[in-house]
Amino acid sequence: MLLDDCRALDAQDPLAALRDLFTLPDGVIYLDGNSLGVLPKAAPARIAEVVTKEWGEGLIRSWNSASWFDLPQRLGDKVARLVGAAPGEVVCTDSTSINLYKVLFAALSQQAASGRKLVVSERSNFPTDLYIAESMCRERGFTLKLIDASELPAVLTDEVAVLMLTHVNYRTGAMHDMKAVTAAAHAAGVLTVWDLAHSAGAVPVALNDSDADFAIGCGYKYLNGGPGAPAFAWVNTRHAGKFEQPLSGWWGHAAPFEFTPHYRPAPGIGRYLCGTQPIVALAGLECGLDTVLAAEAFNGDFGPMMALRTKSLALTDAFIELVEQRCAGHGLELVTPRNHAQRGSQVCLSRTEGAYAIVQALIARGVIGDYRAGDSQMPDILRFGFTPLYLGFEDVWNAVEHLVQVLETAEWKQPAFNQKNAVT
Amino acid sequence: MLLDDCRALDAQDPLAALRDLFTLPDGVIYLDGNSLGVLPKAAPARIAEVVTKEWGEGLIRSWNSASWFDLPQRLGDKVARLVGAAPGEVVCTDSTSINLYKVLFAALSQQAASGRKLVVSERSNFPTDLYIAESMCRERGFTLKLIDASELPAVLTDEVAVLMLTHVNYRTGAMHDMKAVTAAAHAAGVLTVWDLAHSAGAVPVALNDSDADFAIGCGYKYLNGGPGAPAFAWVNTRHAGKFEQPLSGWWGHAAPFEFTPHYRPAPGIGRYLCGTQPIVALAGLECGLDTVLAAEAFNGDFGPMMALRTKSLALTDAFIELVEQRCAGHGLELVTPRNHAQRGSQVCLSRTEGAYAIVQALIARGVIGDYRAGDSQMPDILRFGFTPLYLGFEDVWNAVEHLVQVLETAEWKQPAFNQKNAVT
Repeated sequence: MLLDDCRALDAQDPLAALRDLFTLPDGVIYLDGNSLGVLPKAAPARIAEVVTKEWGEGLIRSWNSASWFDLPQRLGDKVARLVGAAPGEVVCTDSTSINLYKVLFAALSQQAASGRKLVVSERSNFPTDLYIAESMCRERGFTLKLIDASELPAVLTDEVAVLMLTHVNYRTGAMHDMKAVTAAAHAAGVLTVWDLAHSAGAVPVALNDSDADFAIGCGYKYLNGGPGAPAFAWVNTRHAGKFEQPLSGWWGHAAPFEFTPHYRPAPGIGRYLCGTQPIVALAGLECGLDTVLAAEAFNGDFGPMMALRTKSLALTDAFIELVEQRCAGHGLELVTPRNHAQRGSQVCLSRTEGAYAIVQALIARGVIGDYRAGDSQMPDILRFGFTPLYLGFEDVWNAVEHLVQVLETAEWKQPAFNQKNAVT
Repeated sequence: MLLDDCRALDAQDPLAALRDLFTLPDGVIYLDGNSLGVLPKAAPARIAEVVTKEWGEGLIRSWNSASWFDLPQRLGDKVARLVGAAPGEVVCTDSTSINLYKVLFAALSQQAASGRKLVVSERSNFPTDLYIAESMCRERGFTLKLIDASELPAVLTDEVAVLMLTHVNYRTGAMHDMKAVTAAAHAAGVLTVWDLAHSAGAVPVALNDSDADFAIGCGYKYLNGGPGAPAFAWVNTRHAGKFEQPLSGWWGHAAPFEFTPHYRPAPGIGRYLCGTQPIVALAGLECGLDTVLAAEAFNGDFGPMMALRTKSLALTDAFIELVEQRCAGHGLELVTPRNHAQRGSQVCLSRTEGAYAIVQALIARGVIGDYRAGDSQMPDILRFGFTPLYLGFEDVWNAVEHLVQVLETAEWKQPAFNQKNAVT
């Protein structure tokens, strides 16, 4: 693959114009949309309108006149289109961790009578998911059992209450087959809780078609909602009205403005709301969701997310090919699955030495990816996320060109690139 | 009291210039800062900077370069100055309801070995607090006992684990004596959880001097943080490092960037953080906090919040006097205590008929207060919040003048003012 091939791919790319929906800093190739999505061009004006008009002028009247109270459901309906859910099944609210707490609580409540006492998750799951599960298991008399993905489905015995998985692994980019795993879980009497943090807006997700039980996801990665944007929660309609989650605040009440002293949960997903939500942050999230939904026009007959998915796989294929072609002999190992069906929208490379410094050297050159520390099973990782909304094939070429230069000149060995900051 | 008296009070008001810190809509007298504070003038530019510079240009690098990760603690230190707490004792995060869940959980954990099984709260507490307590009590084997304030302290027996109170009642404006109630609770072996939603930024609060145990509060009322701004949590240092709250997300981890699979809580209040916070919303909250802290310069030797408190009481005194003087015979009853020591920063009037419509007629005239439904113990309420940062005595005069006109012309009987909206 040559630079001209990349340029030709860009010239044929039906999604190329979507890049104009974003404000990208000059001189930056942004391969970290899996950590924080890029600013939508519409966001500053929309946020300013919410601040100066809706808050500043409307004040308390905007709860009605600007429909603030409906935002979690209205934005939830937009998320639903991206994750194979129906209108009224998703709410945008709180953080991913807090939503996980709600749905995991509900899932365990549903299994209370079964006598099953294990929650199974992957050892390599995103730590905060494990922390939430660890705490809840201790509190509610369950045990958290950590496994490797290869132990599925054999590990799903009649002792298992809930299987809690992140659909696309944050570190490796490996993707589960949601439908097959859910079917295996259900066959064993196990409920599924899916974290879609690296899936929503990144890969096709078919929650209802997969017959999943519970799902949560993040607003500020591939959904481009802004730093710390509210997250979302989905619950299968067969469960949604059945169990009360314990964060029973007034926004989840069936009649929040009656101010009655007893809690009566709203029907369906509405009960997964708790307290008053950050309206300005929700406005930012809506701008982000609209950028992803703009790609719907290009899906043709192939269903939601298919145009983005097609380009995402082409971008990650190109990156893998160029790294293997041009960085051979530099000790980089491909961690992300080569098989399309098992790959998210990121490519992770491991290296036994210097992964952190190489990432820093790339960032200094304007190629922003990130680093994740290794463990006993895996060396340190260079992580590159590919967001087809605002990345092209020439970006991929240029990113690899910078990587080649960093490796060939040993630029990464400079002391400045080897001092770890708190946040990477 | 005459209009000229009000103008004279404004002329002598040392805080009068603080109104310039805010953008108030033309033609509005805003008596609802106890529900949603007014837009600080600094907020639009600061929020735009966070959106376009920190998010748009800095992208993921802003976690370091813009110190996003420190925001909950840095803003918490500002809140601490307003509630009688020390630096490092407060975090700004999540919603009031979720923070209540955390601290109530911690308080009940601390009482687990005591065998005490009651959580006591007021029947007239803000409903969401009761919903959270109701859910947690059911889950953890406690019973929620609702009382009237007059039953304190007699109700504090050796069966009571936790006394959960809102410092200033959302509906009546009545204020508890935090120090005396806490002392009575401790004498009975009871821990205290205080909701400061209508206190922080409104009245002096002395958490450490009162030896309170746990407190939470709201960012978007008297702290002017914007709609749905993040809330805050404070825990007495003797408890803060002792108990794990169950919302154990990565931001509360002792070493969040080690990504270890097991949760190790941060020391102190840091463990009351959970997931990633909405950065843009936190920026708005900081602008709001800065408006309240601007009043510190006027406190003299009388401690934090004293200048604001002095003016707040003068405003509510003037409002009470003018209503009694000019609206006599119109069936309005003062609900808020006349005694300064028992009064928050709001005045509530009850009326057996037409309270909702009178509030709507006032809003149509630009006098924005709000309505709260009555119950078996109290007729419907007209609620007026007085924020000394941006209200003057002539505003009070004009508000009462509008009230007089609405009552004397029976303007409120127009059908349009008698159709209830969902949100009031």
